[in-house]
Amino acid sequence: MQKVNVELGKNSYPILIGDALLSRSDIFRQYITSNQVMIVTNATIAPLYLDPLVDALEGLGLQVKSVVIPDGEQYKTLEVMNDIITRLLQEKFSRDCTVIALGGGVVGDISGFAAACYQRGVNYIQVPTTILAQVDSSVGGKTAVNHKLGKNMIGAFYQPRAVISDISVLKTLSERELHAGLSEVIKYGLIRDTEFHGWLEGNMDKLLQRDHDALVYAIKRSCINKAEVVAGDERESGIRALLNLGHTFGHAIETGLNYRDWLHGEAVATGMLMAADLSCRHGWLTQDDVERIRQLLSRAQLPLVLPAGLDSQRMLDLMAVDKKARDGSIRLVLLKSIGEAFVCDNFNGEKLHATLEHFQP
Amino acid sequence: MQKVNVELGKNSYPILIGDALLSRSDIFRQYITSNQVMIVTNATIAPLYLDPLVDALEGLGLQVKSVVIPDGEQYKTLEVMNDIITRLLQEKFSRDCTVIALGGGVVGDISGFAAACYQRGVNYIQVPTTILAQVDSSVGGKTAVNHKLGKNMIGAFYQPRAVISDISVLKTLSERELHAGLSEVIKYGLIRDTEFHGWLEGNMDKLLQRDHDALVYAIKRSCINKAEVVAGDERESGIRALLNLGHTFGHAIETGLNYRDWLHGEAVATGMLMAADLSCRHGWLTQDDVERIRQLLSRAQLPLVLPAGLDSQRMLDLMAVDKKARDGSIRLVLLKSIGEAFVCDNFNGEKLHATLEHFQP
Repeated sequence: MQKVNVELGKNSYPILIGDALLSRSDIFRQYITSNQVMIVTNATIAPLYLDPLVDALEGLGLQVKSVVIPDGEQYKTLEVMNDIITRLLQEKFSRDCTVIALGGGVVGDISGFAAACYQRGVNYIQVPTTILAQVDSSVGGKTAVNHKLGKNMIGAFYQPRAVISDISVLKTLSERELHAGLSEVIKYGLIRDTEFHGWLEGNMDKLLQRDHDALVYAIKRSCINKAEVVAGDERESGIRALLNLGHTFGHAIETGLNYRDWLHGEAVATGMLMAADLSCRHGWLTQDDVERIRQLLSRAQLPLVLPAGLDSQRMLDLMAVDKKARDGSIRLVLLKSIGEAFVCDNFNGEKLHATLEHFQP
Repeated sequence: MQKVNVELGKNSYPILIGDALLSRSDIFRQYITSNQVMIVTNATIAPLYLDPLVDALEGLGLQVKSVVIPDGEQYKTLEVMNDIITRLLQEKFSRDCTVIALGGGVVGDISGFAAACYQRGVNYIQVPTTILAQVDSSVGGKTAVNHKLGKNMIGAFYQPRAVISDISVLKTLSERELHAGLSEVIKYGLIRDTEFHGWLEGNMDKLLQRDHDALVYAIKRSCINKAEVVAGDERESGIRALLNLGHTFGHAIETGLNYRDWLHGEAVATGMLMAADLSCRHGWLTQDDVERIRQLLSRAQLPLVLPAGLDSQRMLDLMAVDKKARDGSIRLVLLKSIGEAFVCDNFNGEKLHATLEHFQP
């Protein structure tokens, strides 16, 4: 089992990465604070992994309840969060209870937010079941639900007690989820780890074949990158913003599509290539580097043009309400090179327009 | 102007108490972080005090927007909180914006929670307009909305940047709101300030007549008490629980009535007397002290028996879901004397039943 620590003072916690961790009740036991445990999962994951986890925890003599939410980003809403709270109250769960998020990014974000808000904060554990969740959303304490006017607009910074990443569950991941997860893996290379980008170029085929060692390496290295960034900036007042490479474009795509049709990682992939394109138009990134990025994203079978129906003006409107906007103006994470991102608020509006046009389908 | 500091490390903030502070734009300016300001108030307060505050802030050249919510505890819901978020998004307010809560406890709790959640946390300022809010709910960073199964079940610990308490606005407070506010003032004497209890016994008539100096003294002394408790226990893991004297009974009353008919301070008053009665039944408090407490609450014209329809079993059920319950068992704040409260989880169930019966109407 691999271990990566997220160093946040009294909010520090471990990320545990390994095989068949779902049945390791000895590991879970260390992070559970009372006998009340609520597992939040979704309708896709529940038939596969809920029973084994319940069995493991009931083996510890715990009172284990579960709530199954619908699968999909469009259900990451305040209403579904309230359903989780209702379940906790119906079971008379106290402030000492533990919420376990068993699922992908949506389950993690909404469960984490429910845990942050229930009785003003209860213990919670992330058990991410997608690559995307294992390398990104489960780490760093960002929790949220979406609002119809913007993604992740209602949320909290709230750290889990532990992240338990079972690599075995990736076997049942759909091809599309696998590709979407690799999008966030590629992000770490682009923003701060040139060497990792090179490793990904050399090992993309293995990752696509779900080679065990390659997956463990990519996930661990991604977590190390994320943990370092988060440790330096828990509440995103500075460098943490770099993790949003491609996300302002990506969130606009997701919001414009009402969180349907595209997966988060897919929208981020197109967004990262758009950020690279815009960086190149300013002379900050070479055309060769843009091509390298396009190649790698393309090998991971990610979409690289905007969906139909989101013209440049609509994209601009959607980007202006994204939370990376400050006082109404748009800030973007752009690239100086492969492995070095920066926050930019003085880009050229006409060049942004050219990028938005260039990516029309 | 009086000033009380709430010492919470980097979350420290001042409580400012004085006359005509609503028009003091120089004070507000110090705590506003960008040019975007959203004032949240209710339909009762808006006609009285919204325009003066907007004028003062617009005089600073700020972009000032407002949202008016319905008046009443039954509107302290996730739905109304979402309405505030919607307004912030419609105005394209960024993470640097400031939310100002102008109103009583409900406005403060819901605005504070909206500020805590909007883009995972924005700046906010409390401008409490009732005694109850000035001495209790605006101080200490507890924010929340109610769930149909329990009061304040969804919320966050989130500190304001400042609390600005304008004593002048208390002139327009209804008699009933005045009395309900005095309930929380009386609480501070009971839990930790014997001398203050004596002062209240000597000065209740002045408070009821809204004597300016008496009000300023009572509010400041209450805030000092609250600030000391909160400074020692920001997230309520220990002594802060003492502030809940009367609240487990009180929340059960409020929830049982669907947050209608009774004001929070009224429910707490009955709850405090019930806590005193139960303490006496255990021999922890004298009958004379119970009588002194009853007298003072009675002079403040607060209700001292349960409302119709909440029999003992219903009260017990409601109390068991209150968040002061741990692992399903009920914990109560009880009294050893006037001026000394303690958390008790080993009280006698039959005596609790006797208290619940004794307070039936």
